[in-house]
Parts: sequence; C-alpha cells; structure tokens
Amino acid sequence: MTSIPTRKDILSASKIIEPYVHRTPVLSSENLNHLLDCQLFFKCENLQKAGAFKSRGAVNAVFTMDADLMKNGVATHSSGNHAAALSRAAKLRGIKAHIVMPENSSAVKIEAVKHYGGNITFCKSNLASREETLKLVLKHTNATEVHPYNNPTIISGQATAAKELCEDSGAFDIIMAPVGGGGLLSGTALAVNYFSPKTIVIAAEPEQADDAYQSFYQKKFIPSLNPDTIADGLRTSLGSLTFPIIQKYVNDIVTVSEVAIIRAMKLIWERMKIIVEPSSAVPLAAILENKFEYKNKKIGIIISGGNVDLDNLPW
Amino acid sequence: MTSIPTRKDILSASKIIEPYVHRTPVLSSENLNHLLDCQLFFKCENLQKAGAFKSRGAVNAVFTMDADLMKNGVATHSSGNHAAALSRAAKLRGIKAHIVMPENSSAVKIEAVKHYGGNITFCKSNLASREETLKLVLKHTNATEVHPYNNPTIISGQATAAKELCEDSGAFDIIMAPVGGGGLLSGTALAVNYFSPKTIVIAAEPEQADDAYQSFYQKKFIPSLNPDTIADGLRTSLGSLTFPIIQKYVNDIVTVSEVAIIRAMKLIWERMKIIVEPSSAVPLAAILENKFEYKNKKIGIIISGGNVDLDNLPW
Repeated sequence: MTSIPTRKDILSASKIIEPYVHRTPVLSSENLNHLLDCQLFFKCENLQKAGAFKSRGAVNAVFTMDADLMKNGVATHSSGNHAAALSRAAKLRGIKAHIVMPENSSAVKIEAVKHYGGNITFCKSNLASREETLKLVLKHTNATEVHPYNNPTIISGQATAAKELCEDSGAFDIIMAPVGGGGLLSGTALAVNYFSPKTIVIAAEPEQADDAYQSFYQKKFIPSLNPDTIADGLRTSLGSLTFPIIQKYVNDIVTVSEVAIIRAMKLIWERMKIIVEPSSAVPLAAILENKFEYKNKKIGIIISGGNVDLDNLPW
Repeated sequence: MTSIPTRKDILSASKIIEPYVHRTPVLSSENLNHLLDCQLFFKCENLQKAGAFKSRGAVNAVFTMDADLMKNGVATHSSGNHAAALSRAAKLRGIKAHIVMPENSSAVKIEAVKHYGGNITFCKSNLASREETLKLVLKHTNATEVHPYNNPTIISGQATAAKELCEDSGAFDIIMAPVGGGGLLSGTALAVNYFSPKTIVIAAEPEQADDAYQSFYQKKFIPSLNPDTIADGLRTSLGSLTFPIIQKYVNDIVTVSEVAIIRAMKLIWERMKIIVEPSSAVPLAAILENKFEYKNKKIGIIISGGNVDLDNLPW
C-alpha cells in the first residue's frame, strides 16, 4: 500500500471489514429537512460496533497486518473510541491490544476497553505522558503501534463509511464529516474522489479546536493548542499523512461555535431519535450557523459516534 | 375487511403504506447480547415517520377509507403519537384531521400535531371530556372517527412492523411487543401467526397499568383504572376488537416494574445509541426482570416509539 490509499485499497478494506462491522443505516427526517430547507442523509456510525466509525479502521489495520508484525499484539494511546475499537479488532483476530489511557478517562470508556479485553496502562493526561508511556509499552511488549489516524490502513477503513453512503443514497451535492486528527475526513474525501467525484466535501470543526481550519487555509501544519471544546473526539491535531490528503481532496473547512454544537446535538436526538456524541453534531452545527450554501442541496453527513455519558448531558 | 385482519389485509396494508413510511432498520448490539445471554433484534419504530409505529396504522386507515367517508376529514382523541400520525396521514391524502387533545398535553406533542397541520380542539384531561369533546367535533365537522387501536385497518397497519421484522431477520423463537390499547400487539400477533407461525408472541406491560395482563388471565375484559406508569403510551385499556385477537394469538403477557422500565430504557440508549420512549423499553424490562425463559433465545422486539422530552429524563 502506498501512503495515500488508492481506490483499490478502499475496495479491499470494504471486503476485509465486512464480516466484522455493521453496514450502518442511512437515516433521514422529513421534519428536519423541512426545518432546514435541504435534504439531509445521516450515515449512522453511532450505530457501528463499539459505537463509532473507529471500528472500520481498526479492523482493517489489524486484519491487513502481517502475521510477523502482529505476533506480539498491537498498541496505541487513546482515551476514546479508537481504544475500544482496536481492543475489539485485536480480540477478533486473537491477538493482544495494549492501550495507554489517561488516568482521567471516563469510566464508560475504560469499561468499554476492558469489555473487549484491552490491556490498559494508565498515564498522565497530557500528550508527553501518553507518548512516553506508549514508548515504554512498545519496548516491553514488542507490540506494533496502530496510530488512530496517521496510518493508511486506518484511513482506508474509515473511507468505507462514505463509500457505503454514496452507494446507498447516491448522487450527493455535498458530503460532510467532522475533523479531528483527520482519519475520517481524509478517508471520506478519498472515497468521494474515487466513487462520487462530482460531490463536494466540506469538513466542520469546532472554533475552539480549529487546527485543521488554520492548517488548511494557511497551507502549513498548525497544531491544536489547548483545544477547549465539548466535541472531545476533535481535540487532536492533523497528522503528516492526513493533512496532505485533506489539502488536496477537501473542498472547504468551516468552524462552528460550542453553542451551535450543543444545539445541533439536541436537534439530532430530538428529530432523528438517535444518540450522537458532540463530535457527530459538528457538521449539522455548520448548517445551523449558515456557514456554507446548503439550501436545497442534497447533503450526506457522517455521524461519527454515539458514546456519551447519559448522566452528564450538556443541556 | 372482516373484523379480524386476514393475511391478505396485512399484505395489502404493506403495499398501501410503503410509499409513505420508512421500512425501519433492525438493530442489534453484540454487547447487549453478551450481557443478557440471548440474541436480541430491535425493530426500530422510533425511527419511523413521526417517531412511532402509529404512522403505519394511520396511513393504512386513511388511505383505505372510502372517498365518501373521508370527504369531511378524520378525527380522533389522543394526547400522543396517534394524534401526530393521523394528522400526517390526513395531510398526505389532502384531507383534514381534527384532533381532540387534553389541555395538559406536552408542548412537544402539540407542536408535532400542528406541524402536520392537525386541527386541535383542547379538552379536559379525562376520558369523559375527551369522548364528549370528540362527539361534538364529529357532530360539527361530519368527519370520520379513526380510533387509535380498535379499528381493523389500524391493526393491519401496525402488523406490518412485525411482518418486516420476520422478513428481515427471520426465524425468531420469540417476538415481543408492549401492550397498551393492543393495536400494536394484536397486529404483531396476527403477523406472526400468518408469516412466522412457529414463533411465540410475548407481550410486556407495566405492573402499574396491568389491564391487559388481568384481562388475559381472567379471560374477561378488565379496564385500566388509574394507571400510574412512566410508560405513557401504555395507559389505555384494551378494545373490543384487540382483546379477542390477543386472547387467541398471544402466548403470554408479563408485567414489569417501573424501576425495570427506566433501567431498560437507559440500557437501550447506552448500548443501542437510539432514543426510545419508556413504553418501548417495557419488553426489555421483562428480560431484565427474568419474567420468562429468554436465555439463548433469538428474540425480536418491536421498539414502539421515540418521542420523549429530552429536558425531563427519568434518570
């Protein structure tokens, strides 16, 4: 596989992951369409295994890995959905998953990793401690690192969500995804480029974690410094692999306020009757804040995940 | 159409409603299956148009009605999902819907009826006032009453959910539905009898609104007196048409506590990532309370609806 996943890589990922993940439904609401004066189709990765699109990339990465590389298991640092998804994928292939998690990770997420048999090492809640602890874990275990987004097999896996969306509900004017580290967005942009090239790709990002927006428009990598957003899946910086794909294949990145994210999240819960995490609501927030020409357009939105603490809702 | 819907009536309803309702997805969670040691398949009528299975029956009733009968519109009394579903169906056929609603109906439900163009008359919040007000409305408008459940075209419409569930995820040991007035349950039992006759039908009902349970086991109609349950869709009594169908075609009715309903509701939200109203959680509550032999069984559950007030959750 070359660095930038090809059409063939994505087709191959689709086949590899098929027995292990859901082909998630695409849902729409006439009520919401009426309210917003456009046609919205939500690709529901919140209904994916382990509650997020991350299961796609993790399964593809683990199941395409050479036997020799994987014999000592896989490892990553993550406080979120990638941790559970990688643990699940490793369990499916019968290998170990070593997960470095910040000690203040939510109980729900720690529980999910344990449920899938992940071997947790706790660290301090900062990037330096995460990376240092992961280095130690890799040294002790000889496991292979599976980065949450800066990895071509991960990107190919995430790309399958947009591919399915195009196949199932076709001919979109626009497809939207949220952007954090850029794994989902770069996969989405590649899938659209290969399988629906007339469709425009627009990413949405919290104003308070706008590294992708800044990097995209300043045309140089700008890291995420002190991101402060409720969209906890979008606090990470772009990667050296995801950034150039995004620069080349994404048409626009727009930013949204925290208030709009919460409003969009509640609107999806109310009208679509599905549980989405704040990160998933960021594209709809861009519509609510009128950040691009959406009226009368047919728009596909990738709902990234649904892992939230029901005892701690933002309204 | 005879009083008890036939196989042909249900097949006909499927065709009639097809352009106007969603074929809702069937979802499952390996996590939940693992936890409960059985295989659960949820037929997601919370993702149905207007947020509940009621859209099926309402569309079938309105679209099978003679032109002469419907020329002055349709009418019903309802504080809940039938009101919105009937308003929507009437709008689709280009006729008026007159809805009698208790003055203390939730703002969300009043809004939904208005959204679909229903013409609301408010009444006091008791059955006598509802029926009296509906009589007056019928007299003034010459509209045709569409009862929420004691009506064969309504029952045939509701039956299509279980028919689709059997078609899509087939060969169930057990299919479960909640029971209120019995429209969904009698339709479900008939569909299973015609299309999957080896499958057992088990209904679940709140202990604090157990008129169906009492009627079923005492073999005589016992009305719902002062029902006090969070499952607001299940407070009504069985009807003269639904009760005999349930007596003949349902295998068992079990009752559940309020605590179990809330626990089951939260479990569905957390694990399935979908919004369900308390009534929808009643069958899962029966599994949590171990009310029948469910271990290692393949069980289909009809999720009835997803209309809840997100600012007023029971946990």
